[in-house]
Amino acid sequence: MFPSLVVALIYSENSVWAFFYTILLLLTFGLALGSIKPKNKGIYAKDGFAIVAIGWILVSFFGALPFYLSGAIPSLVDSFFEASSGFSTTGASILQQIEGLPQGILFWRSFTHWIGGMGVLILAMAILPSTGTGALQIMKAESPGPSPGKLVPKVRETAKILYGIYILITIIEILLLKIAGMSLFDSFIHTFGTVGTGGFSNMNLSVGAYNNVYIDMIITFFMFLCGANFALYYQVLKGNIKGIFKDGEFRLYGLIVITSIVLIAINIYGTMYNGVGQSIRHSAFQVVSVITTTGYATADFNIWPVFSKTILVFLMFVGGCAGSTAGGIKNIRFLILFKAVKRDLLKMIHPKAVYSVRVDGKTINDQTLSEVLGFFFLYMMVFCGAILIVSIEGKDLVTTVTSVATTIGNVGPGLGLVGPRGSFSSFTDLSKMVFSFCMIIGRLEIYPILLLTFPQFWKR
Amino acid sequence: MFPSLVVALIYSENSVWAFFYTILLLLTFGLALGSIKPKNKGIYAKDGFAIVAIGWILVSFFGALPFYLSGAIPSLVDSFFEASSGFSTTGASILQQIEGLPQGILFWRSFTHWIGGMGVLILAMAILPSTGTGALQIMKAESPGPSPGKLVPKVRETAKILYGIYILITIIEILLLKIAGMSLFDSFIHTFGTVGTGGFSNMNLSVGAYNNVYIDMIITFFMFLCGANFALYYQVLKGNIKGIFKDGEFRLYGLIVITSIVLIAINIYGTMYNGVGQSIRHSAFQVVSVITTTGYATADFNIWPVFSKTILVFLMFVGGCAGSTAGGIKNIRFLILFKAVKRDLLKMIHPKAVYSVRVDGKTINDQTLSEVLGFFFLYMMVFCGAILIVSIEGKDLVTTVTSVATTIGNVGPGLGLVGPRGSFSSFTDLSKMVFSFCMIIGRLEIYPILLLTFPQFWKR
Repeated sequence: MFPSLVVALIYSENSVWAFFYTILLLLTFGLALGSIKPKNKGIYAKDGFAIVAIGWILVSFFGALPFYLSGAIPSLVDSFFEASSGFSTTGASILQQIEGLPQGILFWRSFTHWIGGMGVLILAMAILPSTGTGALQIMKAESPGPSPGKLVPKVRETAKILYGIYILITIIEILLLKIAGMSLFDSFIHTFGTVGTGGFSNMNLSVGAYNNVYIDMIITFFMFLCGANFALYYQVLKGNIKGIFKDGEFRLYGLIVITSIVLIAINIYGTMYNGVGQSIRHSAFQVVSVITTTGYATADFNIWPVFSKTILVFLMFVGGCAGSTAGGIKNIRFLILFKAVKRDLLKMIHPKAVYSVRVDGKTINDQTLSEVLGFFFLYMMVFCGAILIVSIEGKDLVTTVTSVATTIGNVGPGLGLVGPRGSFSSFTDLSKMVFSFCMIIGRLEIYPILLLTFPQFWKR
Repeated sequence: MFPSLVVALIYSENSVWAFFYTILLLLTFGLALGSIKPKNKGIYAKDGFAIVAIGWILVSFFGALPFYLSGAIPSLVDSFFEASSGFSTTGASILQQIEGLPQGILFWRSFTHWIGGMGVLILAMAILPSTGTGALQIMKAESPGPSPGKLVPKVRETAKILYGIYILITIIEILLLKIAGMSLFDSFIHTFGTVGTGGFSNMNLSVGAYNNVYIDMIITFFMFLCGANFALYYQVLKGNIKGIFKDGEFRLYGLIVITSIVLIAINIYGTMYNGVGQSIRHSAFQVVSVITTTGYATADFNIWPVFSKTILVFLMFVGGCAGSTAGGIKNIRFLILFKAVKRDLLKMIHPKAVYSVRVDGKTINDQTLSEVLGFFFLYMMVFCGAILIVSIEGKDLVTTVTSVATTIGNVGPGLGLVGPRGSFSSFTDLSKMVFSFCMIIGRLEIYPILLLTFPQFWKR
């Protein structure tokens, strides 16, 4: 929260006090809890899940206090929604009027994206002294994707490398956006929103407010970059550039992006835009924004033809790659699922043959396969359960369904009332709490939060 | 087609000729093809799938001819849609005006439900002389559910028993509907629609046209009956009545039905209906109609509150039980999926413990588990693929999504333009063909039709 406090001080705003009190509160709690010495220092899988799940809920709660205490967001539920949306890198907002809020608050709002993107606890591991043997369990529970790998043998070093790449990308984008014509403050805001694949802007019209083709191109490029696995960039830094294009997940991700851009560009050309260039520009921005679950918009896709809207809603479920800052089900899971289904079909043709599911030359074992299939089912069930609760308040079906799809997928905008020009302000507090939990559940890939609800989880 | 010819003769309609010519055509083809003697008489799994998939497409095509030749449905695509809808027991219609069609055509339209419900080819096995060792492969490919069991060692005997129970239920319902006040003809029509879980009526307002509480209750009861596994009724006939209530799938099915009826009744009480009785009556009818994928309606649920509509759309995916005449994903699969997900979660809490997925005391092996999970994924992918094609014509999202959900689930009505008072008439021929294939794909549980598209399938 310290950088936001500094920003508030620079602009000499009243929001300084909101940050000051929250930091004081956190220090008090932190020091008090830190004085308790646990008897057992070992961290098991179960503990990793508990630390991550409870940690994220607490981080969202305390992260909401500056919004609430500064008076920028008068409701505590709304503040919690906005903070959950920030940390989970969703970018959905209950604010109808963003321009005019204190700069410190806007900075904090976007900074939560930046911290949440790579992982709050992974950041803690990278900068705090040794967290012991449990670090891997925490990383596994917090990193998106079915195969969170260690890049180097030591977890702490891996965390440092990931944050190193993350900071490098951040600095480059800030500079490029500044050169393209954004103010320095806006460059920070939109870079946080891009590299964290979050989507909070300080403009009511999001990135569309600048109407600048260079800004669109820069943000499209960096969104795409941050939707891919960061481990690939580590390989690139080590000189293995070809590795990116041999990666099965990256190829699927690229293929889906290009196909979607082409299909939507054809669909909106003539009806929404007259130029081919304009059609491709807006199609590319919106496609990349949605599949990377960023949620920035340069056009109101809510009024696009149904075919384009359908593709965008599907992309909300696909999401980015494992080991990226993006949400959704992830490309690697779809790659594994398609191959698993193909294997099942081949087995029906030749019942006695033995087939294995292979990704990048490696055989996927039955355990992983079952987990990936189970994850897909669970994702759909959480999706359906949340829709059911939100539907009680009786908003139209398109709004109800896409509001849940966009929050669980950490995207941000949906269709209907929650389209790129809309907001989540009109929902009841019950629905807003459901959305807040959908965002955290989606960011942590369901299991850590769901495990908290199991009685067996709390038994010794 | 012979019974329909007789009906047309009784009412001395011109449609007689449509049946006569089609029967003649089929006899010519049949005798010609029957004269070819295959070199190899063995039927393998692959052949079973091919026979069922190609068989169902041909049956729908030839079944469409009476509609087309009689002039009742002037378009061949529409006729194919109506016949696919009939055989697959969907009950979706391109007809806007049903009352006034020739009685023979109406009889044929509903009779396709009755034949399609229990299985066209299973019927053939029951009445034709021995089909050899391949009968089990055909039964496996045509019967809904992951575990189509033989009731008795011989497949042909099993087919006879199933059709015996089916005929018994049919006769009882016809009698009860007649006693409740329907004409004999209407009793036949609505019994075919009920026991086949189809949903074609000869009334524009479906069962709502009678506005008779006894008729509603009888049809609700028989829809529920035919949505459950027929093997349970064989057990009952053998004296094992308790077996029904010990069956895990039946219990889940009953639980979902009761919960849905209560939730919807509460939701529509006060807003749509003033009486508690009326609310329960209409809630029960619509819930049972949709979960059993019948599709009859006594109320226009398209104008019900969003919460009720959401539940009904979810029920379209749940569907009936394995070994019933209903469509959808089936309760047994959801039972297995929920247990598989629970096992995955328990494994995360205790990574070293060994858990198994058990249904009715039997352990589900990994192969079956993987197939069930794969089926769920595949179902969602076919659903999404069909939505994408149908969305090209630009109908609203609710119509687009629910029209696909209701056809692949073999239900009949959806929401929006395809609600209980609407029809599929306004779609393009492309969409109608997509729906026709969705209905057949849904009825045959995807694999047989999908396998036809694999090049490996056609290699020797």
